[in-house]
Amino acid sequence: MNYREESLKKHGEWKGKIETVCRVPTDSREALSLAYTPGVAEPCLAIQKDIEKSFELTRRWNTVAVITDGTAILGLGDIGPEAGMPVMEGKCALFKAYADVDAFPVCLKTKDPEEIIKTIEIISGSFGGINLEDISAPRCFGIETALKERLGIPVFHDDQHGTAVVSLAALINSLKLVKKNKEDIKVVINGAGAAGIAIGKMLLAYGVKDVTMVDRFGIICQGDEGLNSAHEEISKVTNRSRIKGKLSDAMKGADVFIGVSAPDCVSKDMVSSMADKAIVFTCANPIPEIQRADALAAGAYIVGTGSSEHPNQINNVLVFPGLFRGALDVRATTVNREMMIAAAEGIASCVSDQQLSPDYILPYAYDKTAHECVARAVAKAARDTGVAKIR
Amino acid sequence: MNYREESLKKHGEWKGKIETVCRVPTDSREALSLAYTPGVAEPCLAIQKDIEKSFELTRRWNTVAVITDGTAILGLGDIGPEAGMPVMEGKCALFKAYADVDAFPVCLKTKDPEEIIKTIEIISGSFGGINLEDISAPRCFGIETALKERLGIPVFHDDQHGTAVVSLAALINSLKLVKKNKEDIKVVINGAGAAGIAIGKMLLAYGVKDVTMVDRFGIICQGDEGLNSAHEEISKVTNRSRIKGKLSDAMKGADVFIGVSAPDCVSKDMVSSMADKAIVFTCANPIPEIQRADALAAGAYIVGTGSSEHPNQINNVLVFPGLFRGALDVRATTVNREMMIAAAEGIASCVSDQQLSPDYILPYAYDKTAHECVARAVAKAARDTGVAKIR
Repeated sequence: MNYREESLKKHGEWKGKIETVCRVPTDSREALSLAYTPGVAEPCLAIQKDIEKSFELTRRWNTVAVITDGTAILGLGDIGPEAGMPVMEGKCALFKAYADVDAFPVCLKTKDPEEIIKTIEIISGSFGGINLEDISAPRCFGIETALKERLGIPVFHDDQHGTAVVSLAALINSLKLVKKNKEDIKVVINGAGAAGIAIGKMLLAYGVKDVTMVDRFGIICQGDEGLNSAHEEISKVTNRSRIKGKLSDAMKGADVFIGVSAPDCVSKDMVSSMADKAIVFTCANPIPEIQRADALAAGAYIVGTGSSEHPNQINNVLVFPGLFRGALDVRATTVNREMMIAAAEGIASCVSDQQLSPDYILPYAYDKTAHECVARAVAKAARDTGVAKIR
Repeated sequence: MNYREESLKKHGEWKGKIETVCRVPTDSREALSLAYTPGVAEPCLAIQKDIEKSFELTRRWNTVAVITDGTAILGLGDIGPEAGMPVMEGKCALFKAYADVDAFPVCLKTKDPEEIIKTIEIISGSFGGINLEDISAPRCFGIETALKERLGIPVFHDDQHGTAVVSLAALINSLKLVKKNKEDIKVVINGAGAAGIAIGKMLLAYGVKDVTMVDRFGIICQGDEGLNSAHEEISKVTNRSRIKGKLSDAMKGADVFIGVSAPDCVSKDMVSSMADKAIVFTCANPIPEIQRADALAAGAYIVGTGSSEHPNQINNVLVFPGLFRGALDVRATTVNREMMIAAAEGIASCVSDQQLSPDYILPYAYDKTAHECVARAVAKAARDTGVAKIR
């Protein structure tokens, strides 16, 4: 099937992938008096006295805004806020289908970080959580940091952390298969944008010791000239032996390659140069860093891709629904590192030892039990780290 | 029943009066590929080429934002954005139940008009229409005007125009009963805030010639000192004979009294001083300008109130669902005066000559045929005035 052509047709038929429905009676004078005036004055006054009651007396407790500025939509780049709507609506549909979260798409007509932060802050009182989506780097870093400081609700930039969480989940299960320890492996991450840097930080936080970041100019090394602030920060904790060179240099002897970069930038020789039982995740979409068949032919033991057409799809759809479900369930005030690692471990735990194989390292995205598993793990981590307002 | 106490209990049970649902399959690899990646890229690109397609390929065509800053919630005043949520959610529930409009509440954490305008402009790409709600005067005037100029979608401040439309509808049917012509009647409007001024303008646009506005300082007269800009503007087209004095002076010999003001400010004597077959609309809520029984005892022929507990409830619930339904159906680029008058005539027409009586001048708010009638009338007016993008 030509998915893109068929999808355009379907979108024209659907005329929207989400819909807002009414949950209360409205068909009599009494019903109106309870759901609307004059009765509604009382819940209003209760919230005025204690804003926290907005999580009990309105839908806020279950509602997430899926927010983009349209600057980094899928692999399409800066196509504008309205054009990002089908992706945001898709996310909202998946939020509901997989984790019963009410999500609403908000596409912002501005690219100015200060305006984005201000706008989200101003509308945040209607929401229980903020899922930032497809906002280009490096602006996304400052936007997320500022919002996490200012809002008392979970803020999560999916392109960074969703990708990082699912990559970690894939790695956790891959390491079980190749029987290597996280402390001993050498990991190369190609692509040092929002996703790549978030993956690097996540792996380090999880306990991986040897991570090397590579971008289109080569290996990122502390002290390199012209590093942006995000690269400078990550350079201090990666590439400890201060290797310089190209991607092919970094990949020699590596146990794990994670690509969130560009089409066809990895050769068979580069895969062959990796360590025994190499793990190769090629997440560039729609064209991966190296075709799965080529990577396997070159000696890779496990291959994960961003595509739904191959085994081991590494897609953040496995993350965001359950993560927000868990955070909302305990009224978490933030999404912290522990919650993200718990989400990765939750995903990984959904594949039993019996099921686990080089062609099945992750549950399917449409497996609802996986999302429930993530939600439970995240809720527990929120409680354990003291950021849950409901126990 | 104590509606307020019971409503608080119900809100705690409902935990939200609206909900977002998923309208597409998501339970297989193929389904995901169509609703989400990779297929979704194609509708994104189609919208990038032509933003108008966002009304065909996403839910934008049917989606209205119900936006407040929390400064004038019901009769409760400035209780804050979160505390306004139960009212906004209620409106959203009614939008859906009565006119199948998907509405979403957005409560703004700012009172600054420029920030409000900017925020709404920035988020407007996700919506097919903007319903402004419970924003205090005089800020609401400038906010609505600026947004109408900047956005190419319907913008409607419900407290002004919803109230004005339903008041006009009530007047149209009342005049049939008392057999008076709109050109000949003397109308007194007490209360010169957002609602009162909008009612005055609406009646004048409809063809009423003699309107006198009164506020707590007395009759508004052109040339009065200390008038704000909204009062100065309305003073030029009302009170043509430049009467000065109090409300009681204005009401002498008046055919119609419309109160959107304060509790108990009208005496029986004032009603008795009105013309024969006096029409009295007391919309102050929850305590009216004069009790219905007292007004009738003092000689009023028709009494309408803001309360659902009496006949003739004059409530803008009769307006906003159908008005936006009609505007969205034809992809109207604005809400103009003709559309609002058409809405009033549409509401009035739902009461047949056989049904019409001093105790039944308006259809019930939960009568879905009334909203359909409004929608048809508004859509036709939009087409007739050339603001409809779909015919």
